[in-house]
Amino acid sequence: MTLEHFDVGIIGAGPAGLSAAFALKAGGKSVVIIEEYLWGGTCPNYGCDPKKMLLAAVEAKDQVEHLAGAGVVGDVKLDWTTLMRHKMAFTEPITARKIVGLDEAGIAHRYGHAEFVDDQTVQLPGNTIKANNWIIATGARPARLDVPGDHYLLDNEDFLNLATMPDEITLIGGGFIAIEFANIALAAGAKVHLVLKHDVVLRGFDRDMVATMVAEMTAKGVNFQFMFDTDTVTQTADGRVTLHATDGRTLTVAAAFLAAGRKGNTDQLNIEAAGVQVEGNGIKVDEYLRTTTEHIYAVGDVANLPVPKLTPTSSAEARYVAGHILNPANGPMVFPATPVVVFGSPKLGEVGITEAVALTQGYSIESFDMSHWMGYYRNLEPVAQAKVILDQQGVIVGASVLAAHADELINYFTSAINRKQTQADMRKEMYSYPSLGSDMTAFMGGGMD
Amino acid sequence: MTLEHFDVGIIGAGPAGLSAAFALKAGGKSVVIIEEYLWGGTCPNYGCDPKKMLLAAVEAKDQVEHLAGAGVVGDVKLDWTTLMRHKMAFTEPITARKIVGLDEAGIAHRYGHAEFVDDQTVQLPGNTIKANNWIIATGARPARLDVPGDHYLLDNEDFLNLATMPDEITLIGGGFIAIEFANIALAAGAKVHLVLKHDVVLRGFDRDMVATMVAEMTAKGVNFQFMFDTDTVTQTADGRVTLHATDGRTLTVAAAFLAAGRKGNTDQLNIEAAGVQVEGNGIKVDEYLRTTTEHIYAVGDVANLPVPKLTPTSSAEARYVAGHILNPANGPMVFPATPVVVFGSPKLGEVGITEAVALTQGYSIESFDMSHWMGYYRNLEPVAQAKVILDQQGVIVGASVLAAHADELINYFTSAINRKQTQADMRKEMYSYPSLGSDMTAFMGGGMD
Repeated sequence: MTLEHFDVGIIGAGPAGLSAAFALKAGGKSVVIIEEYLWGGTCPNYGCDPKKMLLAAVEAKDQVEHLAGAGVVGDVKLDWTTLMRHKMAFTEPITARKIVGLDEAGIAHRYGHAEFVDDQTVQLPGNTIKANNWIIATGARPARLDVPGDHYLLDNEDFLNLATMPDEITLIGGGFIAIEFANIALAAGAKVHLVLKHDVVLRGFDRDMVATMVAEMTAKGVNFQFMFDTDTVTQTADGRVTLHATDGRTLTVAAAFLAAGRKGNTDQLNIEAAGVQVEGNGIKVDEYLRTTTEHIYAVGDVANLPVPKLTPTSSAEARYVAGHILNPANGPMVFPATPVVVFGSPKLGEVGITEAVALTQGYSIESFDMSHWMGYYRNLEPVAQAKVILDQQGVIVGASVLAAHADELINYFTSAINRKQTQADMRKEMYSYPSLGSDMTAFMGGGMD
Repeated sequence: MTLEHFDVGIIGAGPAGLSAAFALKAGGKSVVIIEEYLWGGTCPNYGCDPKKMLLAAVEAKDQVEHLAGAGVVGDVKLDWTTLMRHKMAFTEPITARKIVGLDEAGIAHRYGHAEFVDDQTVQLPGNTIKANNWIIATGARPARLDVPGDHYLLDNEDFLNLATMPDEITLIGGGFIAIEFANIALAAGAKVHLVLKHDVVLRGFDRDMVATMVAEMTAKGVNFQFMFDTDTVTQTADGRVTLHATDGRTLTVAAAFLAAGRKGNTDQLNIEAAGVQVEGNGIKVDEYLRTTTEHIYAVGDVANLPVPKLTPTSSAEARYVAGHILNPANGPMVFPATPVVVFGSPKLGEVGITEAVALTQGYSIESFDMSHWMGYYRNLEPVAQAKVILDQQGVIVGASVLAAHADELINYFTSAINRKQTQADMRKEMYSYPSLGSDMTAFMGGGMD
């Protein structure tokens, strides 16, 4: 049993923990980072990155299908086995690369399950680590149903590691993970069901665009089952899984995946010993991201913060905390406008204030059917819509985009919001022609400048 | 013979002329715009827009080919006839739409060939128009070779209207039109030759990236013939075209297209009667875009200006001139950083200062191999490179990007240059994750902030 001392200890080596580690080390601190599963955490190993790897193939298929009869001839299918190989070529080297990066930076790293002994001390199997500051960056995990047979249900990690795509699957949930996986599975040839306890798909997103997305997915064959409250899960003799709803409905498929919310990893850290308190789905933090024990911070998915739980927000929080440890006089964390994207076919991107909130504020809303704009028409995208929310001064305060390239287009609006630009300001940019950027400057806010 | 009076007359109804017309009308002027060919001009009818329509199919084919063996199974081909129909669905309504737009705005439009009578008067077949100010926006046309048999050579408009793609074609020139058409023709199944009088492909662009582009195209089968100085063009008995070079080389193909520079449409306007002078390849203008006759302006491709001849610059010049006519106290035209994109496979985008200029200024250059960045790796793009030029203070003053999505990526750098941002400033943006934008903020200028 060894005892080690560091300036700062970090529990969890996902995007948040790693960002904090590098920033603190660069600031002259001695740093240790602890991980008990995959170095790099959820995002690169079984989250946003591998998901977007798989989506590359879906996009290729979509593009060919949209242009069928418009110059592109050919039938494109997804081959799950080689697609998984493509994904694994990306994910497999991650742990090794992260370890090399930590070694090169001179950041200590320890592997194993960590629990607090007191507010400065963490216990690992075989050694004890003391640090002046701790940062909890343990992320989140899928919420379980906690019903009989729950153990038959798979999760996001299982989905992203499927050796073969089952013939028929169910996704439990109506959030972005459920929608994204449904889209991928559908393109890979599966019959897809989406069961929701309630009837709200993509809560918080623009209702018109969500309705369009649900209609598009339904037309492609996705079976949405609303108000389906699963109370038991059973397995059939041939290994299939049956969901039983409280109202008597049942659904039997080859595999069912949990995608009904995520829960901060707060419960296996013995945080009580450190005086750290839980609130909502995560750890309670103040505006400096300090927990109820001031020298212990929480960042990323495990922190209970009113911002989207995304890799960029996690990293920004981590850099903020590193800055606050290095310079405790720093002010509170300020979050810039942060885009959120549902990577479906098409993609739904949102940033800033949504229409629902805008309507309560007397803000105005401009809607654009972009399907005749060059960047969308050329690809014959079936849906391409945007909404821009403007405050009383015409400053852009929100945007929603539903289009194949919403992930890029929403970035233009994000910059505009952070710079407090009007549509006329955006039109002054001279972008490459023709591009998604130039379309926007050509069509947006016509007559305003 | 009628005589009409307007505040402002505009000759040429391309992007420049139309932008000027709408801005002046909105400013309260009576405006007439004259066109002798297609309303909308080169860009939407036989330039950048239809080219990018055709490219949609090429991109779909590229994407499937890149992901062959990585999850995408299928053989994609281009069908030129349906591809042309896709293009025509876009181009055919243009004239009618432009006329409707002019009518709705209350802008007078006249059809026919215009010639100056004096510095206020223009003659059309059947009527005479007097205006206080004239704006010349007549655009440019392909430079001819002016050798015997020159009339056997086709041009960009012919290429973009080909009923069928010939089995074997030659493009004469090494500029962006030649490269773009070569790429499209190759994807459509043609054998492609590129003949250059010199040995400089894409003059002014980053030499390393151009070399990579030429190597990629050569590997795909494009036959570059350098120092091929055509002195005669003949036709074979079966209707094929033969180029004869001064050094004895010959090249016989189904069709040969001029893509060796463009020349301002200055020579059929009788501009001498208005005191307007020619300079270089266009009309001489001062920093207010005034010709040698102060109340006559020239904008767009016909103006001899040291900026790229692009649709966005044309429109910006037109809006500037409209502003100057409405408010003569306005200062000189200021050009923002303007991105230029060669729409090949991959695309080459550049903005601001190039490496060649940077080296003479003591600026620094950062090179990025982006092929392992998520946005490129996921599509297995064979080439994805970027160079960023930084001044002594680390401010971004130029960028070159060679990648499938260079047309979008270069826009991020354009904004950064216009805002005098450093790489650290760019890293502060919170973009959607993962996207081309977030890749950039994650990888660029590592260790700088």
